[in-house]
Amino acid sequence: MPKEQFDLNEYLNTMGKYIDKKLKFFLPKDKSVISQAMRYSVTAGGKRLRPIFVILGAEIFGLQKEKIMSASCAVEYLHTYSLIHDDLPAMDNDDIRRGKPTSHKKFGESAAILAGDALLTESFNLLARAEVPNDRIVKAIKILSYYSGYKGMIFGQAEDTIETGKWNTKNISLCKKKLEFIHINKTSALIKASLLIGGVLAGAKDGDLKLLEKYAHNIGLAFQIADDILDVYADKKLLGKNGSDKDNNKLTYLSLYGKEKSEQKAKELILDAKKSVSKFKNKKNILEKLADYMVDRKY
Amino acid sequence: MPKEQFDLNEYLNTMGKYIDKKLKFFLPKDKSVISQAMRYSVTAGGKRLRPIFVILGAEIFGLQKEKIMSASCAVEYLHTYSLIHDDLPAMDNDDIRRGKPTSHKKFGESAAILAGDALLTESFNLLARAEVPNDRIVKAIKILSYYSGYKGMIFGQAEDTIETGKWNTKNISLCKKKLEFIHINKTSALIKASLLIGGVLAGAKDGDLKLLEKYAHNIGLAFQIADDILDVYADKKLLGKNGSDKDNNKLTYLSLYGKEKSEQKAKELILDAKKSVSKFKNKKNILEKLADYMVDRKY
Repeated sequence: MPKEQFDLNEYLNTMGKYIDKKLKFFLPKDKSVISQAMRYSVTAGGKRLRPIFVILGAEIFGLQKEKIMSASCAVEYLHTYSLIHDDLPAMDNDDIRRGKPTSHKKFGESAAILAGDALLTESFNLLARAEVPNDRIVKAIKILSYYSGYKGMIFGQAEDTIETGKWNTKNISLCKKKLEFIHINKTSALIKASLLIGGVLAGAKDGDLKLLEKYAHNIGLAFQIADDILDVYADKKLLGKNGSDKDNNKLTYLSLYGKEKSEQKAKELILDAKKSVSKFKNKKNILEKLADYMVDRKY
Repeated sequence: MPKEQFDLNEYLNTMGKYIDKKLKFFLPKDKSVISQAMRYSVTAGGKRLRPIFVILGAEIFGLQKEKIMSASCAVEYLHTYSLIHDDLPAMDNDDIRRGKPTSHKKFGESAAILAGDALLTESFNLLARAEVPNDRIVKAIKILSYYSGYKGMIFGQAEDTIETGKWNTKNISLCKKKLEFIHINKTSALIKASLLIGGVLAGAKDGDLKLLEKYAHNIGLAFQIADDILDVYADKKLLGKNGSDKDNNKLTYLSLYGKEKSEQKAKELILDAKKSVSKFKNKKNILEKLADYMVDRKY
């Protein structure tokens, strides 16, 4: 369709519904408490941005989404597991997620731990079921396990949960460095993985993957800055969670830079992100609008 | 070497040391708390039976172990993650494992959850790095995620931790059925996965994989029965853990069948297991001795 007629919200809605249908197809159907807990959290809503990035990553290089929907759902499983475990009492101790009780509030702590474990495990099963040549699947498995593992997402979460209390808050420049590091690992890592998995499953070349990685890095960081701002300024009901970062006295972009500078930094990151994907003519328009979307959420 | 000269303990020692060296090679070297916790639990000891089964599964079909050591270590990572999460306060609440403080006692609960997550995630990375054709790796990924997932090991753990309290203990026949089901999923599942992964990486045929699966099913169940007996009769210091099953009033083979019948059942399972692998002449001897070993541990 012509550029000026493209409606991002309509696109997100349509894609979201399609992905929801596929997620329901792959989710377990039995009545065990773990299967119930897996369904509860995966179907609790969310924009499905990461699965959409898998699809876009593949479509840039000409692969149709139908071949890789299991891989697209895999990253949503992985994202959901990380939310379930992050919400646990020993971690962020959140009671509400997307306006509903968190997994451990609904099913108990042991079921929440195991449901997270099960979603993480199953994400690799789903990824392995993509309908593409096996060498691409093996590459994608390496990407997902790297970016979601102890060098990526888990590292970010550990620094955020365990290490922040130990920081010397008087050393502002070190705090700023560490905060960016946390954000890159907590949020950018899985967005990177999503776009790269899509690209790799479609057989993209290394140089093009680097561009996607840069885009993901920047919009992930910008998203997290916007999230820090939202956490304080948003209507809590609209956001569907309590402002736990503030309650926990965590360091945030807002507390380190102030609102104005934080917003400025987010804008620059988005500009950079757009430059990285200008080459991919067939999806440039959507990727640009998605980049804006990452920081333009209402608050 | 001739059959009569084969010494299982020497074999286990030699293989254990070789596997320990490889585990250390693959483990993260950095100082983050998660990497420390990963190293702590993986190097805490253990017989490395599951990695040995991966190696044997491959060697039966003529593949040298050097090509698949990352896959062999992958199942030990996966086993270790399951122990860390099972020990958590919300699960079995164990303070001691292999004579040392459990992960959450040593590093705190959030680090233990994340270290478990990291080992689980990394196990798929290691498996993907086996030096065999990619189609075999993809099959192996499917096997590991299936047997360790919500239909396998996690299902067993969930039934054991969450559901046992809800059982009608007057319905002995139902209890017996459920207990066997738990044991098959908690223990046999990962032994099955180990042997099958070895076989699949070596290009074994479906019929031969079925035989390995039967062997694993039987020795895993026998092992768990022996473990139930050990839990009550063993010198607790020798075993390196507290007799938590008894303390938690869990149903066990011992409480349902008594000592004599439990031992009889274990023996029958071992006999059946040996029959299943009689075809694999080059490894028959070790597999038979390993089957005996599963129930002959000192108590």
